Amino acid sequence: MPELRKDPVIGRWVIIASERARRPGNFIDTSDIELEDDKTECAFCNNRRKPIVPGSPSEEVTVVRSRDAVLDGSAEFQRAKRGLYDVINGFGAHEIVIESREHVANIADLPLDQMASVFETYAIRMRHLEKDGRFQYVLAYKNYGPTAGSRKIGHSRSHIVATPVQPLRVKEKLIGAKKYFDARKSCIYCDLIRQEIEARDRIVCETERFVALIPFAARFLFETWILPKDHHCDFHNGIKGNEKDLALILKMYLQKLQTGVDDPAYNFVIQTAPFHAADPNAAKWKTLQQDYHWHIELMPRLTRVAGFEKGTGFYICAIPPEDMAEYLRGIEIKD
Amino acid sequence: MPELRKDPVIGRWVIIASERARRPGNFIDTSDIELEDDKTECAFCNNRRKPIVPGSPSEEVTVVRSRDAVLDGSAEFQRAKRGLYDVINGFGAHEIVIESREHVANIADLPLDQMASVFETYAIRMRHLEKDGRFQYVLAYKNYGPTAGSRKIGHSRSHIVATPVQPLRVKEKLIGAKKYFDARKSCIYCDLIRQEIEARDRIVCETERFVALIPFAARFLFETWILPKDHHCDFHNGIKGNEKDLALILKMYLQKLQTGVDDPAYNFVIQTAPFHAADPNAAKWKTLQQDYHWHIELMPRLTRVAGFEKGTGFYICAIPPEDMAEYLRGIEIKD
Repeated sequence: MPELRKDPVIGRWVIIASERARRPGNFIDTSDIELEDDKTECAFCNNRRKPIVPGSPSEEVTVVRSRDAVLDGSAEFQRAKRGLYDVINGFGAHEIVIESREHVANIADLPLDQMASVFETYAIRMRHLEKDGRFQYVLAYKNYGPTAGSRKIGHSRSHIVATPVQPLRVKEKLIGAKKYFDARKSCIYCDLIRQEIEARDRIVCETERFVALIPFAARFLFETWILPKDHHCDFHNGIKGNEKDLALILKMYLQKLQTGVDDPAYNFVIQTAPFHAADPNAAKWKTLQQDYHWHIELMPRLTRVAGFEKGTGFYICAIPPEDMAEYLRGIEIKD
Repeated sequence: MPELRKDPVIGRWVIIASERARRPGNFIDTSDIELEDDKTECAFCNNRRKPIVPGSPSEEVTVVRSRDAVLDGSAEFQRAKRGLYDVINGFGAHEIVIESREHVANIADLPLDQMASVFETYAIRMRHLEKDGRFQYVLAYKNYGPTAGSRKIGHSRSHIVATPVQPLRVKEKLIGAKKYFDARKSCIYCDLIRQEIEARDRIVCETERFVALIPFAARFLFETWILPKDHHCDFHNGIKGNEKDLALILKMYLQKLQTGVDDPAYNFVIQTAPFHAADPNAAKWKTLQQDYHWHIELMPRLTRVAGFEKGTGFYICAIPPEDMAEYLRGIEIKD
């Protein structure tokens, strides 16, 4: 019999199927995730765009402005009302982190130090965009493979987008975390990490400072959260000194995915607290810092979302999270 | 320059691209939405399952229990705590409305009276499931085409799922609508319909009692809301006497989609208020009835959701809603 599980932070219910008979491998359709690998056509191998400064600490990693920017950095912030409706001009920043000079598709295939430089680069750009003072939020994310929204170019890169508003998804998490803190005087993510490490049945892998786990109320096959064990509300301050350990757990996790789930398309996103620098009231940061705990959400793209999910905000997960975690724990990786 | 638009009900921001140069037709990839049309294999042509009673008022329309039920109706409600986590057994109902005896794929190709019977059937089942007293919410939805999550069988049908909890998506809408009502003493959807009918630029088509429009902050290409002009919080009471008019506007809209957007896969979902019968407090219903306004969300499946959308809850819509509405208004349909 299936089970309904509630995400403890945002209160979203998920239906978890109970058919243990179905093995994780049976669900995977990788037919449309082939990457074209024509280096001569690759805009990232042949980058002629000026690097953004301050940028990467490594020669291997470069930040450039996006040519297909979803938001435009040149304009001034303008907000308007149209009757019932609110509108802001499409003001923001959109940068691309080119993660390697070599034509390598998956970040997991880069050396550990280079992966660490990518995270350091995120933090440098986030600190810079925060100082800018015009943005409320910054999102660092990666689309790997066409199914995940990337164009068919196999060159490892990620996106940094700064926005003038706070996204709904983030707001939901902040509200949930604040409610929990107000009631219990502790961070919901810290408590969750403690409970998960004790139970172990949803843990995929662990390093000194991070844990990768399948969330209790997973929406997608192999949905994974990578959580820092140390409490910090934002990525760009919390990551300091932990870049290499994050690289290590991401490499371990992605290698398990490459081997066990046939190198699927995936998205990952850093879920960090909103910028506080724009707000002169220091109390705002104190609240964020005590309530919220930055983390990474990683979503392999193995199943389609159907009408049921779209309509209700209910998701159906076809394999129990404990089975997915057990399967990935059992996948051996190279050292 | 792109524009950020806010959904007035739930507060979700959407990025609306401004490149009017791109024509709607250029975005459409229908390569994987072919329906297999082997009648001899069709479980709905050859239905041997006992119809559920009370069911359809028409001989053409039949309700049966789903063989792949996402929730199970035979169990008793059980709720448990597992440390931080809440869990409910997968208790609920999942029924299939077979919309025709004939092997017809798209509901728009059925006679108007038969389409009206389908809506009447939804209402009959919803009233019945409400009386059951164990469910908090009911969702009626349709997946058309494999991209939309339907298996490759071209026989028109829809789903009715009753759940023991209130889905997050619905809760967000109820909270937004209540907030608006508390501040202005009017229904946000009624005000929105008035403003849209006056402006006309996002209206696709209109009947005596319904309006179909592209929402101001559309997330998807050709996302459409079908709104009843009369205020009512729930479908199964609000639809009485308006079934045929709803059939008419849905037929008009879907024919425009068939002709103008090459018969794409789509999902539609009825967004109705939660059941109130389970709650002995009549005041709850009064609040729902004044705040909320049932409607249909219809989502053609033309674009993939990428990392940016997944991570932030931000969506990027590649064509301005006004352009999409203008395009569909211009598509001529048969009478």
